[in-house]
Amino acid sequence: MSERTVRIGLLGCGTVGAAVVRIVHEHGDDIAARTGGRIEIARVAVRDVERDRGLPLAPEVFTADGASIVDDPSIDIVCELIGGTEPALSLILRALANGKGVVTGNKELLASSGEELFDAADAAGVDLAFEAAVAGGIPLIGPLKRSLVGERISRVIGIVNGTTNFILTQMSERGSSFDDALAEAQRLGYAEADPAADVEGNDAAAKCAILASIAFNTRVVASQVFREGITRIQPQDIADAARLGYVVKLLAIAELEDGEVSARVHPAMVPATHPLASVRDSFNAVFVEGEKVGQLMFYGRGAGGDATGTAVVGDLVDVARNRLAGTRGIGCTCVYERRVRSMDDTHGQYYLNLHVEDRPGVLAEIADHFGRNGVSIERVWQEGFGDEAALVFVTHRAQEGAFQKTLKELRELSAVRAVSSVLRVEGEE
Amino acid sequence: MSERTVRIGLLGCGTVGAAVVRIVHEHGDDIAARTGGRIEIARVAVRDVERDRGLPLAPEVFTADGASIVDDPSIDIVCELIGGTEPALSLILRALANGKGVVTGNKELLASSGEELFDAADAAGVDLAFEAAVAGGIPLIGPLKRSLVGERISRVIGIVNGTTNFILTQMSERGSSFDDALAEAQRLGYAEADPAADVEGNDAAAKCAILASIAFNTRVVASQVFREGITRIQPQDIADAARLGYVVKLLAIAELEDGEVSARVHPAMVPATHPLASVRDSFNAVFVEGEKVGQLMFYGRGAGGDATGTAVVGDLVDVARNRLAGTRGIGCTCVYERRVRSMDDTHGQYYLNLHVEDRPGVLAEIADHFGRNGVSIERVWQEGFGDEAALVFVTHRAQEGAFQKTLKELRELSAVRAVSSVLRVEGEE
Repeated sequence: MSERTVRIGLLGCGTVGAAVVRIVHEHGDDIAARTGGRIEIARVAVRDVERDRGLPLAPEVFTADGASIVDDPSIDIVCELIGGTEPALSLILRALANGKGVVTGNKELLASSGEELFDAADAAGVDLAFEAAVAGGIPLIGPLKRSLVGERISRVIGIVNGTTNFILTQMSERGSSFDDALAEAQRLGYAEADPAADVEGNDAAAKCAILASIAFNTRVVASQVFREGITRIQPQDIADAARLGYVVKLLAIAELEDGEVSARVHPAMVPATHPLASVRDSFNAVFVEGEKVGQLMFYGRGAGGDATGTAVVGDLVDVARNRLAGTRGIGCTCVYERRVRSMDDTHGQYYLNLHVEDRPGVLAEIADHFGRNGVSIERVWQEGFGDEAALVFVTHRAQEGAFQKTLKELRELSAVRAVSSVLRVEGEE
Repeated sequence: MSERTVRIGLLGCGTVGAAVVRIVHEHGDDIAARTGGRIEIARVAVRDVERDRGLPLAPEVFTADGASIVDDPSIDIVCELIGGTEPALSLILRALANGKGVVTGNKELLASSGEELFDAADAAGVDLAFEAAVAGGIPLIGPLKRSLVGERISRVIGIVNGTTNFILTQMSERGSSFDDALAEAQRLGYAEADPAADVEGNDAAAKCAILASIAFNTRVVASQVFREGITRIQPQDIADAARLGYVVKLLAIAELEDGEVSARVHPAMVPATHPLASVRDSFNAVFVEGEKVGQLMFYGRGAGGDATGTAVVGDLVDVARNRLAGTRGIGCTCVYERRVRSMDDTHGQYYLNLHVEDRPGVLAEIADHFGRNGVSIERVWQEGFGDEAALVFVTHRAQEGAFQKTLKELRELSAVRAVSSVLRVEGEE
């Protein structure tokens, strides 16, 4: 590898962008010593050129004109950290068309316009790298695409949103309400003023689409991912789960079954002995099951400028090395066209707590509805008596649609006073 | 990338080698679709050519002459899975000299002769890949060398030996003695008939040397790694640890402090809330702390033919892609020369259980020895009375040499009837 410096143009200089600038500045000599190559942040596009960011860059590096960077012939790699759809999409496509390598952490864009982006990268014969898009600083895309290139992955289950994991940890360990836990997350800067993207599962759904696409080599877009957030989780749900040896987590789940893919985001009860159960606070973790390799888990900081910046710099060095060698990394691996199942066609296990009339025959009546819908009961027990009587069910793995139909029927039974709690169960052996 | 098939010569065809053959056979089309390249197991060197291994390979692929493979001009990559020092070392060096890429899982060889091997790879301008050498199927070397190329790693703590982790899990969860747990591990095929390499920490020490070398960019060899196995761990130690909220694990620890490296393998008490504490049975996990990325953990199967074979195949595809592109991956990253500290110069926390005379003044006398050696006490409490009296200490982080000197002095005190238990403590905040 020659000692030529590879010139990077940065689009956006928020928390992650500033971290990238600092890492390249502080660790640039280490990187050059380890790889024989040097990267330089040559230009940075920002909205406000005048603002002092306290970064080790000359003032003339900054510009308000992102297009001038993607069109600059002296720039080798464009690093997009603006986020959102536009102008990010147009700028990336123009950079690719101009033959530049692109590094991005833009999960929304990849999960909605991935095909267009990768087609453009293929047409130009350049790299499009995105380690930072899923699970921040955790090396995940690289291991999935490279180390596991010879593997068939059957399932990916991830805690990929730090905000909701922090909230659920607070509810679990301190008995907080959802609102109090959210307020605490906002106070600590883990949650935005408008927390919808996190707590309603949209952020996790975008990451789920990307993970499913890579794991199963087929294009899955965010709109195909079922999502249910954590806003309806009650302290009682968490307490019930704990009593039964479970922890409630917001999971992104991608599965391959009979050649078809399912991708969904929802809260679920996870056995306390499962490796994902001990992922606390704002940490992320992604659990991967493969045919040969068995169970793997990748754990770390899913957000934060420095952690995410580390992933971006890893990609920058990788793309830089490829350019200097005149080659490309593994490109888009969506080489199959697999059907994406509707949520109703997926399979899961369910926990159900029903407030019921305490009289003989009620269990038989309820069990009959499960049976007629083909939902098999793994465990059932009564809790409380008289006006406090509840029946608690854990099903075997059943079809989501059949379970939802059962649930609808149960809500209409006079013997069922209320459906106190419904939670999916994941990660059982 | 052209569609040319890359020809692999396999040295050794035991559990891992057979798994590699099967993975390439079963997943070869997937690999070609994802990467545009195809790998073929073209030749296999085995001791007994006549034995039917039930593998999807023509009989003429097998040879008893490993040298004929490393000298075969039609072979692009040599995959060494013989293990041990010789003939593995000579064959790898000859393959490299012949310009072939090499993939190996030979941790003993890398930990003893790494410098010679990487020098030979550099001289020949070819790849030497070894993902399978540490933690079997867990992607670890790739993430450390590539994804974290821009990071400064401060500490690596790993459970890197599945046999000892299985034994400690049995002792912890079933109250087994070491001997019974070892017998169970042998019955299940997790431990060899001669378990010394595992239970005495030698296997973990080799992996620790490799991890330290990569994490801190300096050569650390196995003989520089302090090792203490698990043969002296008593059920009482495990019970004491559990009572205090700890789990006993055999850890491989590599640390960078003031520019100097320490590398050691020993049992230690880990807080039950630490991510490593929940790594059970024969699973492996490696915990990495970096300046920017914070805490990362990689978890999975550290052994077994299929899991390790997956790592080997990942390397084969990587080296194959590099060859077709006429380039190399990141080579040896031991670009600095750092001092490796002796065990006495390392720092740690210690748990100490002393059977003592139950009379006033004993604590003062003992505490005085701690104080004069500069070992600060974090917690101390008495357990039992009279003939059963014990003093239990947990120190702050202290210098190993100072702690050992203290321990030696305490053993000589008449007030100390016996040192019931000494264990290091790791992973405290």
